[in-house]
Amino acid sequence: MFVAAKGCVVLLSGGMDSATALVWTQAQGMTPIALSIYYGQRHGAELNAARQLAQAAGCEHVEMELPLGQFGASALTDSSIDMPQEPDSGIPVTYVPARNTVFLSIALALAESRGVHDLCLGVNAVDYSGYPDCRGEFIEAFERMANLATREGVEGRPFRIHTPLLDWPKERIIQEGIRLGVDYSMTVSCYQADEEGRACGCCEACRLRREGFEKAQIEDATRYIVL
Amino acid sequence: MFVAAKGCVVLLSGGMDSATALVWTQAQGMTPIALSIYYGQRHGAELNAARQLAQAAGCEHVEMELPLGQFGASALTDSSIDMPQEPDSGIPVTYVPARNTVFLSIALALAESRGVHDLCLGVNAVDYSGYPDCRGEFIEAFERMANLATREGVEGRPFRIHTPLLDWPKERIIQEGIRLGVDYSMTVSCYQADEEGRACGCCEACRLRREGFEKAQIEDATRYIVL
Repeated sequence: MFVAAKGCVVLLSGGMDSATALVWTQAQGMTPIALSIYYGQRHGAELNAARQLAQAAGCEHVEMELPLGQFGASALTDSSIDMPQEPDSGIPVTYVPARNTVFLSIALALAESRGVHDLCLGVNAVDYSGYPDCRGEFIEAFERMANLATREGVEGRPFRIHTPLLDWPKERIIQEGIRLGVDYSMTVSCYQADEEGRACGCCEACRLRREGFEKAQIEDATRYIVL
Repeated sequence: MFVAAKGCVVLLSGGMDSATALVWTQAQGMTPIALSIYYGQRHGAELNAARQLAQAAGCEHVEMELPLGQFGASALTDSSIDMPQEPDSGIPVTYVPARNTVFLSIALALAESRGVHDLCLGVNAVDYSGYPDCRGEFIEAFERMANLATREGVEGRPFRIHTPLLDWPKERIIQEGIRLGVDYSMTVSCYQADEEGRACGCCEACRLRREGFEKAQIEDATRYIVL
């Protein structure tokens, strides 16, 4: 008997973590629908990366424009706020207000529209940047809310949010990703990458990425902007 | 001493309920920021109504395009699904997957970006259409999630979601709105209004509106499409 693979909406930013989450869903036997939301980041390199990653995974890719950047209030979307070179204490200026809440909400809308009950988000609470919406207790509260908000949840076909990377240090993410066939040279982590996806090498995201490859003892194919 | 009025992000669709919620926030001494999200409804009449209402209230109006309609799966956004003329049993085909979750998430992002901690949504669980995301338990779960998701929530400056209309029958909404100065002739309720905002008179939303005005014993200025 043929059993159709279970669908799963995966938020795909084009960074390392979501690239790993994408192939993780395939390794679990699910059929991913990648969802990329262009929210007015400073650069479009991430979206190009997302397209390459979805193509490499051979999965459907849904893209959406969402002008969250018009609200400002983050160094990721507002070029008048300087990008920090050193780790902040507490929640950094790169925090985008309610970003993962908005992203998961749209993923939920897509999932329910398609009759899919699994969602996957590559959040990570270890080598993370102090964002409140990357923590397990946020994910649990979102899942609970989602199952009160939707027809599927209310009628007893609940949604489940998978966060396989939540407790993995960066080097484990890289090791698992390599094992599952991720080509990390396609991914962009840098907060201020140029249009070709070349990294600055000095922001918080670049630092975490470099340390991850060093600890995993895997060569890092990141291309850097040479000034 | 001058104390600045407390801001409040109000979701404003252009319908009767959100129009009433908007003036309610003003009556509470808050300064509303109206937020209208154009999500690919079948008609643009609601958005025109929202603009008029925001102007009449003298408040800031933020508009956002969000192509949720590309996901389909609702008679409100997919013209291939027939609009029902009779009440459905259970959750009707006009249900838009995760709509209020998405809307509240964007309202939360706007609020946090502006340093505002109050949100207001004109949901109603009495004369409603059976939507799961119009119930108090959904709103409570969203508020809890929001205060785990955000910098403001985590740092002890929690968000509060006001739903003043939640337990009011339609006639009370109309009576309160009239008392607070809402001009309901500006509002559009119909699921299939034409571009000028004229109502069909036969959909579920038209039926609830007509009954509300009858019970409130207030003349209804709704303009209908004459065939």
